[in-house]
Amino acid sequence: MKEGNEMKQFTLSPLDAQAGAEAKAYLDTLTKPVGSLGKLEEIVIALAEIQGRKKPVLNQLGILVFAADHGITAEGISAFPQQVTRQMVSNMAGGGAAINVFGRQQQAEFTLVDVGVMGAAFTEPVLDRKIRQGTDNFLHREAMTQEEVEKAISTGFEEALVLFEKGVDCLVVGEVGIGNTTTSSAVVAAITGIDPAELVGYGTGISSEQHLHKITVVREALNRHQPVASDGYDVLRKVGGLELAAMSGAMLAAASKRIPVILDGFISTAAACAAETISEGAAGYMLLGHQSMEPGHQKAFEYLGKKPVLSLDMRLGEGTGAAVAYSVIQSAVRMVNEMATFESAGVSGKNE
Amino acid sequence: MKEGNEMKQFTLSPLDAQAGAEAKAYLDTLTKPVGSLGKLEEIVIALAEIQGRKKPVLNQLGILVFAADHGITAEGISAFPQQVTRQMVSNMAGGGAAINVFGRQQQAEFTLVDVGVMGAAFTEPVLDRKIRQGTDNFLHREAMTQEEVEKAISTGFEEALVLFEKGVDCLVVGEVGIGNTTTSSAVVAAITGIDPAELVGYGTGISSEQHLHKITVVREALNRHQPVASDGYDVLRKVGGLELAAMSGAMLAAASKRIPVILDGFISTAAACAAETISEGAAGYMLLGHQSMEPGHQKAFEYLGKKPVLSLDMRLGEGTGAAVAYSVIQSAVRMVNEMATFESAGVSGKNE
Repeated sequence: MKEGNEMKQFTLSPLDAQAGAEAKAYLDTLTKPVGSLGKLEEIVIALAEIQGRKKPVLNQLGILVFAADHGITAEGISAFPQQVTRQMVSNMAGGGAAINVFGRQQQAEFTLVDVGVMGAAFTEPVLDRKIRQGTDNFLHREAMTQEEVEKAISTGFEEALVLFEKGVDCLVVGEVGIGNTTTSSAVVAAITGIDPAELVGYGTGISSEQHLHKITVVREALNRHQPVASDGYDVLRKVGGLELAAMSGAMLAAASKRIPVILDGFISTAAACAAETISEGAAGYMLLGHQSMEPGHQKAFEYLGKKPVLSLDMRLGEGTGAAVAYSVIQSAVRMVNEMATFESAGVSGKNE
Repeated sequence: MKEGNEMKQFTLSPLDAQAGAEAKAYLDTLTKPVGSLGKLEEIVIALAEIQGRKKPVLNQLGILVFAADHGITAEGISAFPQQVTRQMVSNMAGGGAAINVFGRQQQAEFTLVDVGVMGAAFTEPVLDRKIRQGTDNFLHREAMTQEEVEKAISTGFEEALVLFEKGVDCLVVGEVGIGNTTTSSAVVAAITGIDPAELVGYGTGISSEQHLHKITVVREALNRHQPVASDGYDVLRKVGGLELAAMSGAMLAAASKRIPVILDGFISTAAACAAETISEGAAGYMLLGHQSMEPGHQKAFEYLGKKPVLSLDMRLGEGTGAAVAYSVIQSAVRMVNEMATFESAGVSGKNE
């Protein structure tokens, strides 16, 4: 991906509107009042357009979590100390984090990748694809170099392909990275042009004073670097994070293979915004699993034209909201594949 | 239940506030920011209070569907003809209805009970507990007799106990019955005192004209019978349905065994309102799975003090919203049982 030519692998095929229309027509023949399964029907149609078949199928969820540190934590914008990134990676490697629990529930293939945690390489089961130890503090310097952002995106792309080769046909892209709601605020503000004050939230639980400071930090960083809104590479390099870039890459890989991505919260959706600027149409391959409590999340997913499947007042990240939503997405897929039609069941239609 | 004495079996033990408080304290030790799993944490606390243990457990879902016909359909208040009740029971017996699909997804024990469908008895797998063939048209006469309402409630109670003996520890109570949104509107209006115009919806898809007529029918029926708001027996007898009464009985059985019930949409919540008037505190053993598109549903669940887990714009009934919600409720239970604590995982707490 260092060459212009290699970027061409990101040219995406359009969604299959025909398959979506066929799915919609078929749903109306099933033994239920027309439209009475609400969002489940919308999910079926979206998946039909993505997979290009009237009755979409989902057999194997994959969860791909990228971990990295953020130099911006030096500005005191997080409730938790930076070493928690490393500790949470260890917790996740041991199976004790929330995303592990929901991953087991969904019988997901799970991959945890270090793309930039401070300190030494982790051992198995964490994949060591460390690009550098944390980003630079983007209040003062660009978060990373052009080479690094490209490498992070490629890494995400490659690790997603590995999962697809294992039979994964639906992808959750999660993250660990203390400070990454600040980074995501900067990325979303840069791409959408929305005022950081409308995007910056309380993350894992900061004070009102820290919250104001966090807004100021994001504003000043954007003023300093002037990232180009339409260029995800530029935005991620200047004010992004290594895990965000890897997430964008993984999402692009899924879109290139017509595999649906379930977006999680604010960080995941920030990465999706970047992916969409890199390859227009990528967002069409994404469903939004859950609406986060982070205020910026709604702005970001509306920018992408998405509506959440779930609203459970969660704000944990890691991919958790998306992993929980997979059950409901599976309900939708089972419904279209297993329900009887009025004709096959001999059920009368509406009164005329 | 024909005797005053037998009603005492419905005296419910209070929720276990101590177990709820312990669950809340324990949730705050898990490796996530405090409160960051939102509604999943609320579900854990509610289940802890119901089951009386800090870490609630759910092993086996049961789905109990009652079917019956409604004499009120003679007033032209439904989009579908009455024979669809019978046809949908056959469809459900064959596994082709939406509730069958979601039941299989949840590996649920599934029981389908005819308590009052027009026509002859069904064969296996439908349980024949027919009390009468449909209710009377409650616009003109009381829907059923005192003996019949008591028998319907007992039947529901008994069939729930059969499931609990099979190991079911969480219950969805569903229904089939053309006309039952009209019946439910009358029941909820009678119990809550809310104007029928605020409760009556479009059911399976009636016209605006039919909708106005449906409101008038409910209003006139309530004027005629003057059901006693605080007496679920009186309300169900005068303007209720056989499946609604059986649903109330099943919910009371669950509450008596401290087994959580997942409420579905408007009909299920109407039955819950009746159950609460029969035995105060029953609603404490209920979670609300899904917010239906029926306008009366919100009024009814607010009356019970409930908040929905899901809002998927569904309006099918059968128990479908509750069955889909079970996945998310399981996510909550797995979370409290499987996540690591900050101490066990060696993760640092918040900055001071």
